Amino acid sequence: MGQPGKHDRVDDAALKSITRAPFPGSRKVYLAGARYPELRVPLREIRQTPTQHASGAMAPNPPVTVYDTSGPFTDPEVAVDLRRGLAPLRAAWVRGRGDVEELPGISSEYGRARTADRSLDGLRFHGPGRPLRARAGANVTQLHYARRGEVTPEMEFVAIRENQRLDAALAGQHPGQAWGAAIPSKITPEWVRDEIARGRAIIPANINHPELEPMIIGRNFLVKINANIGNSAVTSSIEEEVEKMVWAIRWGADAVMDLSTGRNIHETREWILRNSPVPIGTVPIYQALEKVGGRAEDLTWDLFRDTLVEQAEQGVDYFTIHAGVLLRYVPMTARRLTGIVSRGGAIMAKWCLAHHRESFLYTHFEEICEIMKAYDVSFSLGDGLRPGSIADANDEAQFAELATLGELTQVAWKHDVQTIIEGPGHVPMHLIHENMTRQLADCREAPFYTLGPLTTDIAPGYDHFTSALGAAMIGWYGCAMLCYVTPKEHLGLPDRDDVKEGVITYKIAAHAADLAKGHPGAQARDNAMSKARFEFRWEDQFNLGLDPERARAFHDKTLPAEAAKVAHFCSMCGPHFCSMKITEEVRAYAEETGVQVDRALEKGLADKSAEFRTAGGEVYVAPRPPEDRRQG
Amino acid sequence: MGQPGKHDRVDDAALKSITRAPFPGSRKVYLAGARYPELRVPLREIRQTPTQHASGAMAPNPPVTVYDTSGPFTDPEVAVDLRRGLAPLRAAWVRGRGDVEELPGISSEYGRARTADRSLDGLRFHGPGRPLRARAGANVTQLHYARRGEVTPEMEFVAIRENQRLDAALAGQHPGQAWGAAIPSKITPEWVRDEIARGRAIIPANINHPELEPMIIGRNFLVKINANIGNSAVTSSIEEEVEKMVWAIRWGADAVMDLSTGRNIHETREWILRNSPVPIGTVPIYQALEKVGGRAEDLTWDLFRDTLVEQAEQGVDYFTIHAGVLLRYVPMTARRLTGIVSRGGAIMAKWCLAHHRESFLYTHFEEICEIMKAYDVSFSLGDGLRPGSIADANDEAQFAELATLGELTQVAWKHDVQTIIEGPGHVPMHLIHENMTRQLADCREAPFYTLGPLTTDIAPGYDHFTSALGAAMIGWYGCAMLCYVTPKEHLGLPDRDDVKEGVITYKIAAHAADLAKGHPGAQARDNAMSKARFEFRWEDQFNLGLDPERARAFHDKTLPAEAAKVAHFCSMCGPHFCSMKITEEVRAYAEETGVQVDRALEKGLADKSAEFRTAGGEVYVAPRPPEDRRQG
Repeated sequence: MGQPGKHDRVDDAALKSITRAPFPGSRKVYLAGARYPELRVPLREIRQTPTQHASGAMAPNPPVTVYDTSGPFTDPEVAVDLRRGLAPLRAAWVRGRGDVEELPGISSEYGRARTADRSLDGLRFHGPGRPLRARAGANVTQLHYARRGEVTPEMEFVAIRENQRLDAALAGQHPGQAWGAAIPSKITPEWVRDEIARGRAIIPANINHPELEPMIIGRNFLVKINANIGNSAVTSSIEEEVEKMVWAIRWGADAVMDLSTGRNIHETREWILRNSPVPIGTVPIYQALEKVGGRAEDLTWDLFRDTLVEQAEQGVDYFTIHAGVLLRYVPMTARRLTGIVSRGGAIMAKWCLAHHRESFLYTHFEEICEIMKAYDVSFSLGDGLRPGSIADANDEAQFAELATLGELTQVAWKHDVQTIIEGPGHVPMHLIHENMTRQLADCREAPFYTLGPLTTDIAPGYDHFTSALGAAMIGWYGCAMLCYVTPKEHLGLPDRDDVKEGVITYKIAAHAADLAKGHPGAQARDNAMSKARFEFRWEDQFNLGLDPERARAFHDKTLPAEAAKVAHFCSMCGPHFCSMKITEEVRAYAEETGVQVDRALEKGLADKSAEFRTAGGEVYVAPRPPEDRRQG
Repeated sequence: MGQPGKHDRVDDAALKSITRAPFPGSRKVYLAGARYPELRVPLREIRQTPTQHASGAMAPNPPVTVYDTSGPFTDPEVAVDLRRGLAPLRAAWVRGRGDVEELPGISSEYGRARTADRSLDGLRFHGPGRPLRARAGANVTQLHYARRGEVTPEMEFVAIRENQRLDAALAGQHPGQAWGAAIPSKITPEWVRDEIARGRAIIPANINHPELEPMIIGRNFLVKINANIGNSAVTSSIEEEVEKMVWAIRWGADAVMDLSTGRNIHETREWILRNSPVPIGTVPIYQALEKVGGRAEDLTWDLFRDTLVEQAEQGVDYFTIHAGVLLRYVPMTARRLTGIVSRGGAIMAKWCLAHHRESFLYTHFEEICEIMKAYDVSFSLGDGLRPGSIADANDEAQFAELATLGELTQVAWKHDVQTIIEGPGHVPMHLIHENMTRQLADCREAPFYTLGPLTTDIAPGYDHFTSALGAAMIGWYGCAMLCYVTPKEHLGLPDRDDVKEGVITYKIAAHAADLAKGHPGAQARDNAMSKARFEFRWEDQFNLGLDPERARAFHDKTLPAEAAKVAHFCSMCGPHFCSMKITEEVRAYAEETGVQVDRALEKGLADKSAEFRTAGGEVYVAPRPPEDRRQG
């Protein structure tokens, strides 16, 4: 590690080729705050073409605005220089609170050693210089402010961001089934504050990550997704990791974890953070293990503590900490089909057994809290004993650890440290719900953050889907953030295509969950798409979708001509045999019959409305089995 | 149509290049019946390599047998000549029942005209000659036999096929939650008969499709998937369609619908049927519409009747019939966001409005039953008014039609005609369950067969996944067969890759549902995979998966060397940092501590067992929302 090799210098050409294309038919718009007028909350606005009626008349369609995680990279009006990093939007907010101090330099020993190592100059991100830390006695977490009743700029930012700007024409939607969540029709800054205050949501926002566009994780908000990136012992350069981050957020990643275990982890992280508009998470034990040459039993509290400080001062927004792996839980995994599959969990289990005592993560948990609150790093309490197979789902080891994570949540909250809880893993569909209900109970509604779960083990190469299926379901049940899985899971390292496939598959899962929960406005994009589809507005269909490039390419493969994009038919049925065309005729005919139709419609709508009113009580209870008239 | 063009002759080279490679590490095995010893029920047996213990000792792993839809094409010991068709396995069974007669020739006028057209000679499948039909007064449906108490060879065949042969080491599994289904621990021929007799399952098996390897559709059996193929006005040859069928069943399609709307529909269908070991379904109204030049209002009962007979005598196993589109339901769709999106539904709606009376499908329904029972064609009652968007899900039009389909089911059953019911479409997750419960109630447990449903509309290019998500859920709730959707849905015509992607995605959905329902033995393949994964048996992992080719390719992309396939690590973490490796050490350590571990384990298993016993009552009721302590 650290020896100059072929990757001893960050390559300017690579930095300049970062993905920056705006989305087609789209422009970035920024909304100001009411309380904090200086806020510039990003949204993407997708313009639409007009509807062409059979009469020839044209009717305009309103633009559709969508939540936008992609940062300045998709805004052609913003100059981006990766060597300088993104603009420090939050710097004034953080300093304005008057509770931080600028340190004379990096506090961590390791960080100072890296800085002093001249051989790393070619790899180093230059700037921003001196980290911030809470003044002595101060607590700079969003949870602390919320409990004091303060609405921070971060809180107003996410409140604006969570609301969808809707045209009334697209606003119709089914009432959701929110499984006990309570989503207001409009998200206010005060609602955000109150959700954070009770621990039911977090805004991961390290004071040393001023480039962040704040986002919120909680089950009364839009479901979020996390993408993992990071180098390994043999692959990937700094430039590649930065591009992976930019690429992941382009397609919708709300948060990114840097799980690097290879060379130059410290420098790689700095480049990512300085250029990331989304929260960055890490698993500090990974880097700590590298520092001791991969020998888990050699890990110490001092070394780990230094790693936490190192990363906190760089600006990492959330740390996965596997403090729930207790010595007495380890033997519970011995006869599992797949033992311990979490890397962090395995490391800590090995340490516990080697020393035959509880891990330093557990015994020093309050000291960890002290560090977290000095920078506002959020806990992501790791599930080191999560099941690694369908066979091991929902077992004693998993739930024992969950109970401990619940206890640790209480400790974290005592320090006003924001906390989320990590969850599985591999769980068949019918056991998913138990995970959610136990987590809510054990962890007092701290947000849940699951890896999938995978609903079957038989499809390596397709685990983005086997897991997104479970993710959509647990998102509906109340899981706040879904950690993506790529098609390469269990097989190899994800490349660019895998990252995109994983992110979009999880964006679908998150959105399907938002629809099912009835998030206000969630259905507007579906409605816009459906209207465009029905009206054969092909360009609008492409642009409204999660992946305009693929939609266009698929369409063009069958009907490449430009004329086909304005044709009132599609390739599946050809010009003379189109159900949508026939429906238009049906509609025209039905309209001629006037009163009769209107009466039918009125009745229909009234019935539907009544049906939805009663649905909550009828549809979601355990169905009564039909009388079993089994004969044999 | 029918004019000689570049596709005026079926190409021998194309026929010979049909996909025939066996699956890696696999061999076909055939099981005989107890009642009918001549049965040869196909399974695929995947061999495994031994486990290598740290001590160097080797322990063998049993082969894993899996349900196999791929037919003789994957058996190198069977000669296949597409020009001759597959062996007519069922011919003796059908004739042996003594209730059929061989017709002097094709009954349908259209079929006779095609046969007489010499310009089609190059496209024609030659043979098998004369169709069978029930003798006057006879009823040759499996439902008829079942109600008479008979166990047919078809019934024993599917009973054997549904049972998984298990090694005890892999048999452990979670109890499922079967939502009112009643799946026995062993499927017997008598159970099959009784399920068919009560209409809760069907064996689609036209007497003119002797090449069929019978399969069963019902919610107390494994969840099945259907793949659609078929040419369109502009694309595809006969050879391509046959290869699409072979390709689809290779990856797991249990049934295939030929939805051709282009040229030479009659001839294409014949080639597909003569070479298909899976049931073939069609939507006869598509071909009927072609016969009247695409003018729906010109359709007549006589023309439709002739089409039914034409296709029944070729051996089509199930017909989609949109007989539930009633005149009074049509106006209910007028103010939908996406009107009528079912092609069949749109055709019938247009016909109803043009003639201002009920469709010939509805008014002649009993005559249709007479035809169906003379050949044992099963009804797939089409949902012509299914929603085409999230916005239109579960609306009045949809459920009005469903109620009518329930009435028609009773009529079909009166004639002992096997019947399944088609379902949506586009439905957000929280409204899926209502579809299943209403269908069970309205249609008296006749099997449900849904298209997805898609759970969101915002991801064109990914609708195989937006829909497989809904499909997995409704499969769990009790849906018996899932109609696949490919990534090209809404955009273009699926190619070979799309067909494979669609089939495998749906196979995952079906299997996830089987796991969740607790189908006996369903978890064995997951367990085998997990054990292989834990033991770094890479070859076994590839071979046990749904797509060995992709799994291997993904693995090789990161670690191409042959040695990596026996390495005790994987590319994600490298050789020095592997959670599974560490777990092995934990396990060894835990084993040393002996008694303590065993005690923990015993307790663990006991707890787990108790937990599962109570889970049925706790986990699946509507969760009580946590007390809302909302502050704001």
